[in-house]
Order: sequence, then structure tokens, then C-alpha cells
Amino acid sequence: MAHEYTTSRKLVSEFTGTAFLLAAVVGSGIMAESLSAGNVSLALLENTIATGAALVALILAFGPISGAHFNPAVTLADATQGGLPWKTVPGYIIAQCLGAIAGVYAAHAMFGLTLIQRSTHLRTGPSQLFSEFVATFGLLSVIWGCSRARLAAIPFAVGAYITAAYWFTASTSFANPAVTLARSFTNTFAGIRPVDAPGFIIAQLAGALVATALFRWLSPTLPQTADELLVPHRSQEVGSRNA
Amino acid sequence: MAHEYTTSRKLVSEFTGTAFLLAAVVGSGIMAESLSAGNVSLALLENTIATGAALVALILAFGPISGAHFNPAVTLADATQGGLPWKTVPGYIIAQCLGAIAGVYAAHAMFGLTLIQRSTHLRTGPSQLFSEFVATFGLLSVIWGCSRARLAAIPFAVGAYITAAYWFTASTSFANPAVTLARSFTNTFAGIRPVDAPGFIIAQLAGALVATALFRWLSPTLPQTADELLVPHRSQEVGSRNA
Amino acid sequence: MAHEYTTSRKLVSEFTGTAFLLAAVVGSGIMAESLSAGNVSLALLENTIATGAALVALILAFGPISGAHFNPAVTLADATQGGLPWKTVPGYIIAQCLGAIAGVYAAHAMFGLTLIQRSTHLRTGPSQLFSEFVATFGLLSVIWGCSRARLAAIPFAVGAYITAAYWFTASTSFANPAVTLARSFTNTFAGIRPVDAPGFIIAQLAGALVATALFRWLSPTLPQTADELLVPHRSQEVGSRNA
Amino acid sequence: MAHEYTTSRKLVSEFTGTAFLLAAVVGSGIMAESLSAGNVSLALLENTIATGAALVALILAFGPISGAHFNPAVTLADATQGGLPWKTVPGYIIAQCLGAIAGVYAAHAMFGLTLIQRSTHLRTGPSQLFSEFVATFGLLSVIWGCSRARLAAIPFAVGAYITAAYWFTASTSFANPAVTLARSFTNTFAGIRPVDAPGFIIAQLAGALVATALFRWLSPTLPQTADELLVPHRSQEVGSRNA
Repeated sequence: MAHEYTTSRKLVSEFTGTAFLLAAVVGSGIMAESLSAGNVSLALLENTIATGAALVALILAFGPISGAHFNPAVTLADATQGGLPWKTVPGYIIAQCLGAIAGVYAAHAMFGLTLIQRSTHLRTGPSQLFSEFVATFGLLSVIWGCSRARLAAIPFAVGAYITAAYWFTASTSFANPAVTLARSFTNTFAGIRPVDAPGFIIAQLAGALVATALFRWLSPTLPQTADELLVPHRSQEVGSRNA
Repeated sequence: MAHEYTTSRKLVSEFTGTAFLLAAVVGSGIMAESLSAGNVSLALLENTIATGAALVALILAFGPISGAHFNPAVTLADATQGGLPWKTVPGYIIAQCLGAIAGVYAAHAMFGLTLIQRSTHLRTGPSQLFSEFVATFGLLSVIWGCSRARLAAIPFAVGAYITAAYWFTASTSFANPAVTLARSFTNTFAGIRPVDAPGFIIAQLAGALVATALFRWLSPTLPQTADELLVPHRSQEVGSRNA
Repeated sequence: MAHEYTTSRKLVSEFTGTAFLLAAVVGSGIMAESLSAGNVSLALLENTIATGAALVALILAFGPISGAHFNPAVTLADATQGGLPWKTVPGYIIAQCLGAIAGVYAAHAMFGLTLIQRSTHLRTGPSQLFSEFVATFGLLSVIWGCSRARLAAIPFAVGAYITAAYWFTASTSFANPAVTLARSFTNTFAGIRPVDAPGFIIAQLAGALVATALFRWLSPTLPQTADELLVPHRSQEVGSRNA
Repeated sequence: MAHEYTTSRKLVSEFTGTAFLLAAVVGSGIMAESLSAGNVSLALLENTIATGAALVALILAFGPISGAHFNPAVTLADATQGGLPWKTVPGYIIAQCLGAIAGVYAAHAMFGLTLIQRSTHLRTGPSQLFSEFVATFGLLSVIWGCSRARLAAIPFAVGAYITAAYWFTASTSFANPAVTLARSFTNTFAGIRPVDAPGFIIAQLAGALVATALFRWLSPTLPQTADELLVPHRSQEVGSRNA
């Protein structure tokens, strides 16, 4: 009988992984800014390296259980292609958002800061919104591009992509609605004003949508295999369990 | 019946991938310079890390569709060895050049700059030209060296090579005629004066040619398998589609 | 007849690998601090890159012999899941601690410092302890998460995780009782006051315990295959030796 | 009939790869120092990243042809274990040394410097020599440790190891007699006084010898498979050529 991770296990996996992702993004921003004495360039480099490396480790670790989406835009895109069942989507998104906020609080606790904060970091204007569109378009392109023939490389591809996108977008590439929401809860290096979050999220969803449409055309056979994106090693696991 | 990506899909893949590559090169240069307060060393390090990481992600994502050349020197070298059919070469080169320019414009838009620019960044002289010869000789050596036994490692090998070559060549290793052309359209960190571009491109093609001749001698069986460089996972895809 | 690494070989492997890990952590801290003229941010970035890269290399090299734990928290967690036999645990922990201290002395010798030192670097308080709990919880999550389906990626996952955790925890993520003990023997960049070490170690063991319980629930079939974590390539070696 | 790379192809591969390695080490040192305005810490970080990345790319590219030793200490160690035939050893070492010097000259040419130089960079004393012993002991440990079960990871393991060792040794880890010889021919960032080179080389050979003896004991079956270290993909190539 085939092993399947239960939905509750998948949701805990998404919660925990997204929490660690946000702890990494926000925590490394706090550490980098506090050590860098006003050198924002060096602080962003350190924030970048920590975030990219965290993504590699977390997607490797949580991918086999829940697909390691950590990102409502990825979850929705996957569902549109017949991957994650639609009935599981709300649970994923809620787990991601709650996990993201928990990760921000964990970062605050680790650095001895007030837990409950509200960002005053202004991030708005058409350049920022276009940046988020491009950032998420690129992220979904990388995921869909690897999803057929190079599934095992996704953790490295996503980590490398975000490492680059922190620098080539004016918005430092949030590219993730749950990350955007949670970063409005911290008034540190990585924060974003709550009022600026909805624009970011709309731009991100638009970018994800366009990339998904593009790759549906580029790789017509994508839908039939897209469920492997969610649970990449299922058949392999069945085999090894029965052996 | 075997699945084959149509030529139009391959051209869109080359266009999109090259656009992202240039957005990464130019965008990260803008971000790095604007944050670094005159510390060119730190700015180039950030530009390097973003470019190398972008290459890893983009080659992983677009490689299965079009081979992820993103580079007319690679396309021409591949055609000389019986890889890409000659009739497809012009389309590839045009898609790469148009994509590269589109990527520069996207970077300008993301950072709120004037879209149409013209570089005044002087890059000339025999040291610069010899640097481009060496840079492209090395790039093609790495690609040909991996193309028989280590195909799956090419995204990492190319990303690592360019990361190194940004620093060990005096020209910061353009190593790509489409990149050279497009970088003449930006008057930011990564730019090159239009008048300096042709010399760079000639040196790059010479480097690619010599490396291809060397590896043809080093690995006499190369031509028979070189078409796998273009569409690395074709047979594998056939298998998984029919299964 | 199947090849098995003897216990003495495994212990020498743990000793040597942990010694190199500590030489890397402490030595790169000394080098970075001495070159950085008070720029602690840059020094920590260099210390981070050296440590993360060393972990990748050392786990790749010593993993096939002893599992490359280098960490009593990993050894204990592995034993609780039926991996390493309990009778081998004390030897592992002693080898790791002695190796760690030898590595610190090697770093001192390489930089011409007094061999025997005692740290005065204060690292205490609830934020530091919570940071060590989170750091080790995350480290064990990454190891357990990769241990079923992505065993070959563990060296990269652990190296990437520690690279991130140096920055996202307030304590710079010791996450290892042997490392903590040994770093109390150096009064350089990476040191910790001996009096602060026990609190760190208790927080680390608690983090390891909670992560192990979580992943036991997340992946119920974990125990049956956990011995592969210790000697990942055993069956493969048997096959290749007999072939 | 099985394909075998001829000795002349292997020697050209060692020459070319070692030349690129030295161009990367010396060239990136020149670039980094010239941009860093006296910030030696940042310059060494850039030199490190370029060197580590170059090693990954070059070992991936030249490994299938000649084993990508680029290092007389590796060649000698391999020969002692029955890998490379002793009669091929002198050719390898000569090719490596000539390639290394050619690479230094190429770096000088790329940066418009006088080709023929002589270093005045003092690197001597017991700490430096012990550092070279440790650096080469570690390098050979990593190579031997990966050589049985993780051959495909060697390029990444060696690149990561040298990245770390630049920082955790007082000598910045030359760990290679050909590199040491060639770096005495440049009076730039990476240079070493000719009079200091012999001590470095002796310490390196001692480190390689001790690591080889250790791993011969740790992995008794090593010799029987060591020839795979030299030509890692031979059997695989035969198969694919005959298929």
C-alpha cells in the first residue's frame, strides 16, 4: 500500500518551512544591519546570501513532504495546472501565512526585540510594482522550467534565482504573498508598510499567472506531470518502502 | 511519437532566458552601484554573485527547452559541430539579441530609469580584447568539456565559470556577443560604448572558435553526441511521456 | 563478504573531520578579524563563507566512512531513531570533542598564537539561548528532512543551512555541543566564555530533541531507514566491491 | 573497441586547465587589489570566490579527460595508490608547471602588466609551513574521501574546500607545488618570493603523503578503484560510444 503524507503533515511542513524562511529573511536582515554600521550594500549582500542558502536547505528538507511551496503564488499556480487539489489550497495558504508570521516573531525573539511590530518601510510606486511582477514571473518560470526534467535541481535553482533577484529588482524581490504579509509585521531591515503590501501581492500574482501561461504553452505536456511538483519522490518512496 | 519542442518554442525560450540574463546583469549593476557609495570593489562582487546565480537558475530552467545558449558564440560553436541545424542559427541569434535588449529595458523600467540609453563606458585596448578572447575561450572550453560526460552539471559549471571570469579578466568577461550588444544600450554600471562593442564581439568569436577546435581534438567523439547539448533531455522526455 | 568500516575507522573519521571543522571555524575567524580592521560585518561574512564551504567538503569526504556527524546532538538524535547503535555513541562523542579541541589548537598553531587559551567572549541571555534552540532545531530538521529521499544532498543542505543560520540567529548558530566546548578554548573571534557553554549545549540538545520528535511524526517510516544516515553508501559499496 | 584519451590529450588537458587555474588565481588577485583601495579583507574574499568557482568549473570540464589534477601533489599521491602509471607522472608534472606559468603570463597580459615578474611577497616561518601542511593534508583528504563513493561530487568538494582553506590557513592555502612555483613569477597580490617556494612545496608534499597514508588505512579498498580517480567516466564513455 502506497505511503502518502497526510494533509495535516503537509500543512505542518508548509508552516514550519515558511516560518524558517521568514526567520532567515528577517533575522539575517536584523543581524546584517546591526553589524554593518550604515553600509547598506554589505548588509543587503549578507541578507541575500543568508536567504538564498536558507531556501536551498529548506526546500531540500521539506520538499519531499509538502512540495516546499512556502508561497501562495506557487500553490495557486500549481493548482491551476492540476497539481495540488483545489480543496487543499486554502489550508496551504493559511499554513504559509501563519508560518510566515510565526517566523517573523521568532526572529524578533532571537534578537531580543519587541515581538509585535508594524513596518514603516515605504515600498511603493510603479517601479517597485513592476519589479515584483518581474520577480515572481521569473520565480515561476524557474520552477516550471525545472519541473519536468530537472526536478531534483529545484532547490538549487530557486535558491540561486532569489539570490540574483534580490539584486536585479528594485524591490529586492519579495515574490511571495505570504512573505509580503509577514514582512509588514517587522519594523526592521526587511520590513514593508502594511499599506504597500496589497499592491505587491497583486503584482506577484499577476507575474505568477503570466509565467504559468507562458510555460503551459512552452511545455504542453506540463499538466500531466505537474503533480510530481508537489510530492516529488512519491513513486520512489513507495518503491523503497515496499522493498 | 516523440515529443519535440517546436522551433517557435525554442526561440521564445532563448528570448525569455536571455532577457532575464541581461535584466540580472544590468539590474544588479544598477542596484549594487547605487548602494555602494563609490565602493566599486563591493559593487562588482554583488554584480558577480547576482550574475552567476542567475545563470545557474536560467540554464536549469530553459535548458530542457532550447539548450539555454543565450549566446550567439555558443550557438555558432554548437552548429559547427553538428548540434543545432544551421537553418535554426539565425533565429536563435536574433532571439538572443532581441531578448538581451528587452532585458536591458526591463532593468531600466524596474529602477525607474530612462528606457533608451547609450553607454559612454569606455572599454577598449589590447588588454581588454585579449581578456574577451580568454574569457570566451574558457567559457566554450567549460561547455565542451562538460558536454559529453557531465551534461547535468553544465548550469553549475557555467555559473561558476562566469563568477570567476568577472574577476580574472580585465574586461569583467562579457564573453557573449548578444550581451555585448545589449550592454551598449545602458549607461549604467554594466555598460560598454557602442564603438567598443565590435572589437569585443570579434575577440569573443575568435575565443569560441579556438576552444571548439581544441576540444574537437581533445575529444574526437564529440560531434556524434553534440546534439544532446542542444536538447539535453529529449530521449528522457520521450520515455516519461510515453510511460 | 561485505565491507564494513570498523568502529576505530569511524572514530578516526569523526575525530579528523571535526578537527578540520573547528580549524575552519576558528582559523577563518582569526584571519577575517585580522584583515578586517574592525569591520565585524565583513569579518562575519568571511567566517560564514569559510564555514559553510568547509562543511560541504568535509561531509562529502567523511560521510561515507562515519556519517560525518561531527556533532554530539546529531549522534544522539540518530541513536534515538535506531541509527547509530547506543554502544557506539560514547566513542563518537568523545572523538568529536577531542577532534574539535585539536582543531582549535591547529588553528592557533597555523596563526602563530598561544595554543592554550580561554575565551572571554560573553554569549549569554535568553535571546542567545533561544537562538541556539532554533539553530539546532533547524539543523536537525534539515538532516531528517533530507534523510529519506535526498541523502546525497545532505552535504549541500547542511552547508547551506549553517551559512544562513550564522546570520539569522543572534548567537551565530553554534548548533553543536562539541563546537561549543571547543570554542571555549580560543580567545579569538569565534570564542565563547566557558561559563556560557553549558547553557548553549542544553539549548542545542533541546532543539535537536524537538526536531527529532517533529520529524518522527512528519515521516513515520523514518526509523526503518535511519541507519542509512550513518553509513549512506554501504549497500552501494558492497555491490561495487563484489562486482 | 574502448575509447581512451591518449597521453598527449591528457597532457594538453592538464596544461590548459592548470593555466586557467593560475589565470584565475593571479588575475582575480590583481583585479581585487586594484579595486579595493587597500581593503585587503574584501580583496581576499573576492580572490577566494573567484578561485573556488574557477576550480568547480575547471574540474568539471577537464576531469573527464585527464582527471583534472592540476597539482603535482595530487598526481604523485594518485600514482602511489596505483592510479596514474608512474611513467606518466613526469609528463603530468611538467605539463602542470608549464601550464601554471603560462596562466600567470596570461593574467599579466590581460591586465596590461609586464609579463616577466619576480615576487617580493614574503611568505615564510613555521606558521606558514604548518599551514601548507594542513592545507594539503586537507585537500588530499577531501579527494580521497570522495574518490570511492562520491566521485561526481569532487569538483564541488575541491572548490568548496579551497574556498574555506583560503581563510582558515595563515598561508591562504596554496596546497599545490605547481601553483606555488608559478606564483613566484608574479609580483602581484597572489605572489610568493622564489626563496620561500621550496619550503612551501616540501610542506605540501608532506601533507599529501600523510593524508594518503591515513586514507589508505581508513578505506582499505581504495587502491583497487583508484584508477577511476584519473579517468572517472571511462567505462561510462565506452558504454555510450558503443551504444
